[in-house]
Amino acid sequence: MEVFFATSNKGKADEAALILGKAGATVRQFPFEYRELRSDSLEEIARDAVMEAHRRCKKPVFVEDSGLFIDAFPGFPGTFSAWVQRKIGNEGILKLMAGTKERSARFEACIAFNAGRSVSVFRGVCEGSIASEARGSGGFGYDPIFVPKGHPQTFAENKELKNNVSHRYKALLEFSKSLASMR
Amino acid sequence: MEVFFATSNKGKADEAALILGKAGATVRQFPFEYRELRSDSLEEIARDAVMEAHRRCKKPVFVEDSGLFIDAFPGFPGTFSAWVQRKIGNEGILKLMAGTKERSARFEACIAFNAGRSVSVFRGVCEGSIASEARGSGGFGYDPIFVPKGHPQTFAENKELKNNVSHRYKALLEFSKSLASMR
Repeated sequence: MEVFFATSNKGKADEAALILGKAGATVRQFPFEYRELRSDSLEEIARDAVMEAHRRCKKPVFVEDSGLFIDAFPGFPGTFSAWVQRKIGNEGILKLMAGTKERSARFEACIAFNAGRSVSVFRGVCEGSIASEARGSGGFGYDPIFVPKGHPQTFAENKELKNNVSHRYKALLEFSKSLASMR
Repeated sequence: MEVFFATSNKGKADEAALILGKAGATVRQFPFEYRELRSDSLEEIARDAVMEAHRRCKKPVFVEDSGLFIDAFPGFPGTFSAWVQRKIGNEGILKLMAGTKERSARFEACIAFNAGRSVSVFRGVCEGSIASEARGSGGFGYDPIFVPKGHPQTFAENKELKNNVSHRYKALLEFSKSLASMR
């Protein structure tokens, strides 16, 4: 089965091709820029985006949206994670968390797939916490300050770990199971 | 002259009616909800919004967008000021600024007016700084932590001062001069 990934990020498209390929799917990148919904819900944003993506692509297509959710600041940086990262960086997040005992956080990813009849949604969650300092040089974005539950290292210190427990990996895995069942 | 203010905020509409009324303009509120552009530029957002507002309203119409810009974090909270305020509040801003000597900031407002031929833009800026603690109970949003230049009090401690030096007031004043010259 051929599925299109509506994204402007080639790295994401490559990761998806690898995981969905094991389910027998061929992933093609569909370059996609559009006016994203302003919402605090990844699912709302993804559902809205995949409707527009399907109108343009006219083939089975999916989108993926993800974000970091810090319990001490509900919904933050959430669906605006990329923007907040650009503006205040990990240094800003660590300052915000100074003196905060509640350091739990989670990465969430949401995939929405539209093959023309209805939209299917696949979620991936990676529970963890915000480190007390940035550690590691791998990965990008919030990786140096995110410690997945049950592990001592940050995502930036252990990229292999990230690839196996990440929110995006989990959402892609759920999606690949669904695609495999369609064969 | 009758002008429509595309906003869902009745308080803003009342303030505009008062100031533009002195220039002989009658302000009517045009209820307006739309998918705002994601941009770091108030002017880009306002220009885009007023094009859509005019398509719907089909009468002389204006929009207003404003934000707080903190020099220590360029572009933050900027065009996402309302969202950041809801998520981390003034307490969060003060934590971000802890230990930061560079406390200068400014409120900016941008009005875009579209009478059908072209878009005119009017700006208002209020220079100031971020207080070391929240003070005062008047106003809303960032008012308790914003100290306008040349004054000892925050906007929340002196609402009359705010009404006379605010970014929004200045932008409305520029707009009213332009409207008066059209009579």
